[in-house]
Amino acid sequence: MGLTIGVDIGGTKIAAGVVDEEGLILETVKVPTPTTPEGVVDAISDAVRAVCASGQDIEAVGVGAAGYVDDKRATVLFAPNIDWRREALKDKVEQRVGLPVVVENDANAAAWGEYRFGAGKGHDDVVCITLGTGLGGGIIIGGRLHRGRFGVAGEIGHIRVVPDGLLCGCGSQGCWEQYASGRALVRYARQRAAATPESAEVLLSLGDGTSEGIEGQHVTRAVELGDPVAIDSFRELARWAGAGLADLASLFDPSAFIVGGGVSDAGEVVLEPIRKSFRRWLVGGQHRPHAQVLVARLGGRAGLVGAADLARQG
Amino acid sequence: MGLTIGVDIGGTKIAAGVVDEEGLILETVKVPTPTTPEGVVDAISDAVRAVCASGQDIEAVGVGAAGYVDDKRATVLFAPNIDWRREALKDKVEQRVGLPVVVENDANAAAWGEYRFGAGKGHDDVVCITLGTGLGGGIIIGGRLHRGRFGVAGEIGHIRVVPDGLLCGCGSQGCWEQYASGRALVRYARQRAAATPESAEVLLSLGDGTSEGIEGQHVTRAVELGDPVAIDSFRELARWAGAGLADLASLFDPSAFIVGGGVSDAGEVVLEPIRKSFRRWLVGGQHRPHAQVLVARLGGRAGLVGAADLARQG
Amino acid sequence: MGLTIGVDIGGTKIAAGVVDEEGLILETVKVPTPTTPEGVVDAISDAVRAVCASGQDIEAVGVGAAGYVDDKRATVLFAPNIDWRREALKDKVEQRVGLPVVVENDANAAAWGEYRFGAGKGHDDVVCITLGTGLGGGIIIGGRLHRGRFGVAGEIGHIRVVPDGLLCGCGSQGCWEQYASGRALVRYARQRAAATPESAEVLLSLGDGTSEGIEGQHVTRAVELGDPVAIDSFRELARWAGAGLADLASLFDPSAFIVGGGVSDAGEVVLEPIRKSFRRWLVGGQHRPHAQVLVARLGGRAGLVGAADLARQG
Amino acid sequence: MGLTIGVDIGGTKIAAGVVDEEGLILETVKVPTPTTPEGVVDAISDAVRAVCASGQDIEAVGVGAAGYVDDKRATVLFAPNIDWRREALKDKVEQRVGLPVVVENDANAAAWGEYRFGAGKGHDDVVCITLGTGLGGGIIIGGRLHRGRFGVAGEIGHIRVVPDGLLCGCGSQGCWEQYASGRALVRYARQRAAATPESAEVLLSLGDGTSEGIEGQHVTRAVELGDPVAIDSFRELARWAGAGLADLASLFDPSAFIVGGGVSDAGEVVLEPIRKSFRRWLVGGQHRPHAQVLVARLGGRAGLVGAADLARQG
Repeated sequence: MGLTIGVDIGGTKIAAGVVDEEGLILETVKVPTPTTPEGVVDAISDAVRAVCASGQDIEAVGVGAAGYVDDKRATVLFAPNIDWRREALKDKVEQRVGLPVVVENDANAAAWGEYRFGAGKGHDDVVCITLGTGLGGGIIIGGRLHRGRFGVAGEIGHIRVVPDGLLCGCGSQGCWEQYASGRALVRYARQRAAATPESAEVLLSLGDGTSEGIEGQHVTRAVELGDPVAIDSFRELARWAGAGLADLASLFDPSAFIVGGGVSDAGEVVLEPIRKSFRRWLVGGQHRPHAQVLVARLGGRAGLVGAADLARQG
Repeated sequence: MGLTIGVDIGGTKIAAGVVDEEGLILETVKVPTPTTPEGVVDAISDAVRAVCASGQDIEAVGVGAAGYVDDKRATVLFAPNIDWRREALKDKVEQRVGLPVVVENDANAAAWGEYRFGAGKGHDDVVCITLGTGLGGGIIIGGRLHRGRFGVAGEIGHIRVVPDGLLCGCGSQGCWEQYASGRALVRYARQRAAATPESAEVLLSLGDGTSEGIEGQHVTRAVELGDPVAIDSFRELARWAGAGLADLASLFDPSAFIVGGGVSDAGEVVLEPIRKSFRRWLVGGQHRPHAQVLVARLGGRAGLVGAADLARQG
Repeated sequence: MGLTIGVDIGGTKIAAGVVDEEGLILETVKVPTPTTPEGVVDAISDAVRAVCASGQDIEAVGVGAAGYVDDKRATVLFAPNIDWRREALKDKVEQRVGLPVVVENDANAAAWGEYRFGAGKGHDDVVCITLGTGLGGGIIIGGRLHRGRFGVAGEIGHIRVVPDGLLCGCGSQGCWEQYASGRALVRYARQRAAATPESAEVLLSLGDGTSEGIEGQHVTRAVELGDPVAIDSFRELARWAGAGLADLASLFDPSAFIVGGGVSDAGEVVLEPIRKSFRRWLVGGQHRPHAQVLVARLGGRAGLVGAADLARQG
Repeated sequence: MGLTIGVDIGGTKIAAGVVDEEGLILETVKVPTPTTPEGVVDAISDAVRAVCASGQDIEAVGVGAAGYVDDKRATVLFAPNIDWRREALKDKVEQRVGLPVVVENDANAAAWGEYRFGAGKGHDDVVCITLGTGLGGGIIIGGRLHRGRFGVAGEIGHIRVVPDGLLCGCGSQGCWEQYASGRALVRYARQRAAATPESAEVLLSLGDGTSEGIEGQHVTRAVELGDPVAIDSFRELARWAGAGLADLASLFDPSAFIVGGGVSDAGEVVLEPIRKSFRRWLVGGQHRPHAQVLVARLGGRAGLVGAADLARQG
């Protein structure tokens, strides 16, 4: 009893997995991500049906989707990567798969997964940030996912941290995501390597030798090899990440922050300076308990597991 | 039945009032604010006893205090204006007045008051900002006051909106309060009046004729008289206020913002540009429902009424 | 006696003109701008020979080129639009046209033109800024063009006015040009029109109806028609322009600033707020004489006339 | 032959010294700095007469004064520390000492001293920055001191590097001086030591043990002892200093920058990161010769020596 399916819609693949009450993935199916909006709906349904085929008794399906999901967790108001506008995803998938469906923002689903089965266990008030290519997040308050009145809360990557700052894909300027994300890390590394290549020899040797050829994995690898520019680039990212966590502490006052996403794979090299920056900018730090800053544990599975668990909760 | 007492601790006076279930103040007593920490505790208790003296049946007392109040709503962890550090205010006042006491951050209490009996009626998800001398706030999520894990959530005035920005009394830099508050308004007006006095003739005539003599009420009055510098100063404040609301919308996604405090007395002169700036910076504005931006209704009574009602809720 | 030729290298056309000692253009020839580096050298030479053909006695040739020109005014170290790297332009053109050639940065040449024959007459210490698509400038100190030790002084558009600000084509971030230029004006207008279209009806009607369809000339036209978003966009640009002039006053202390370029065609609509912002941010303004802020007079001819005059000076 | 006197007006002492053509100080006299404006004039004159008493043949006197000095080098338009407003200092001192007097801004005098007899030897285009309590500077162009049209050029400490940034004593906000100066260094150290005392044990042990007790000399000493917070504080200062030098390179294009003032006593600990930051932010760095970043050589004598030499030049 108690099995649900979680679906994770990625840029190249859609994964559907059967998840039990402990957050364990029992089985997964992956299908390629189609390019048309309707194709994605079909592919989600196909993947769900395929993973059902083994005959296990499934209660419900949770779908994590990038974008705004409405307050009923039924309609995708807007998706940045798929051309969905007011897409009635819940109804469409329910019709195709014959199971109750819950739709959730993918970063919210991942946050929920970490809260329930990962680094957030034992906490009731948690803010998760995902330092991937961009910066996503999800907020748990009193053991409940904070969705907001219209379903679009928790868009932490788009608070403005620099007035008149960098242009963001969202159309605004100075968004946190532009300063604390994998993309930002690469920009920091490229700028520094171009200006002082003699301090970036290791880093440059990992790519094609030019500053423009530096990619995220090169920076993560170079930091392990002690490359000064790579270290400095992680520190710059950590400064912005920690300062933003301090803002979130002022607003939400959680007992823990969970830092996930590809950038967090660097581990303490980035976590420790994030903690330092967090403490530096935490307002009233001497007079209040401090939230812990923890590294995520579920890796790329968080979204699928979280979506499945949200479907279980109904 | 259902009467409680709310207490509002001001810089010069402490007010205690009997409040009914509709948020009406039936009776108030005011006493001067003592200068010693223990004196304030006594004065709170004196005011409560005095307002009880009329013989009405009182259930509980709510005390709104500036500073950090712990998760049990019992201890003031830190107060910026009174020398309270881990002050067991609930216990001390309960001992003196013989009634159950709830302590709450004053801005939270005011937000609760507006939510219950003021501009927030009919909304369940509300963020209140109080543009007084500083910038305070309170957050209601799903009909509940958001206090955070340790009781210190909702410190909206101290999120960082300008890296390396103005020093703040809290010890940090670039806090929102430094750009959106009564104090900021006065700074804007003084700077502009000093640089272009010919555009501030009305404004300057309301004070002592010097830019340094300009006070908040002069700016509010001058804006009614069409003074260009006063208008421009309100606009600058509104730009920062609205941009900050957009950030809060990204995070909390409420159905309404309520703008209170002395600065909001200017009414639409400041509310309308705040709304404009809010819309300008609201991320994803075309794809999501917009929160309303409302003016507060309870004025200076919000804190007392809110504290009384929180005491009723227990 | 005293005739020289000035050459202006534009994106689509190269203009060569015979200029007399009063800065009057007696005759011009235009040829299309070739796409190859060597082709541009040939085209410059062709244009010079063509304008010489009328038989007037020419003393020298001045060529204004975008990019860095070395301290000998002979070599283009780097050109952003033509693939010139350490291009010995002076020698090549001299060989082809048989006249002494002086090469100068085009914005410097334009500044010199304005200084000698335009708005700068009567001043010895002048800073010119050209609000075109980008932001160029030139500096006259004690009646001499300030070229710097290596010839690359006066790159005023690339001082950093916003740390961690907008990416610039130069590879840096937060350059003044990103906030005070024609391109910035269009960005301001588009952002505002997208957020508050109801305040941009006139502006939107001049383009294709969408915020992305707004171009510079639409904003200039809409401001004449009283469009609120267009007015506000010019004001934003003026705020940044004036604040930058205040910085330049702290450094150079000229007696006049000259504001040219397409954006300045809007006249007092932009000049007056620039002056206001300049005065607002001028440090020590009560204790020092203020530089005048003048509008340029020569329009698009400034570069050609200035280059010709610099050639005359030798 | 060729002896002149230089006068340096400090906060506690006024020094007058006889200086030869090689910049050597042959003799000095110090008197306490009076508190009244007229008293300072008398004290300057007393010091000059005292140092003359040895009977050497003196040609002229140069006085370096903080504040704005007019284009005739005669009148102090405004002094921040002494209550001089349009003070005819040249005339007053000439009357008292019977020698020709030249007045100059003290930072300009110090820059001239370094240019002529210190780190600037061999350069014709030099920008000096003095990282003392504040941030002063002086600019040499083509072997001449750049004074501007009204005498107040070279106020490099007050260019705006952070919009809406820290309040400055000059009345403006975000001035470079607030981020690159001895005062800024102390602020960086205090903030960091308060937030992460465990990384500032050495630094804290040098003062009274509290973050507020940290002074500039503690930071300089702690950096030699390897204190992490002290190192990080110098780096932060260096980031801002280097970025500002890059702006000055865009504008002035000197062949050398000279960094002086008490902060530069830390030597390479601060110079090397300044150079790094300079290169990082230098626009077009691959396409142009780079200015050298040199440490000043004359220490506290630069102002006196420079003033004396300026008097010699007449």
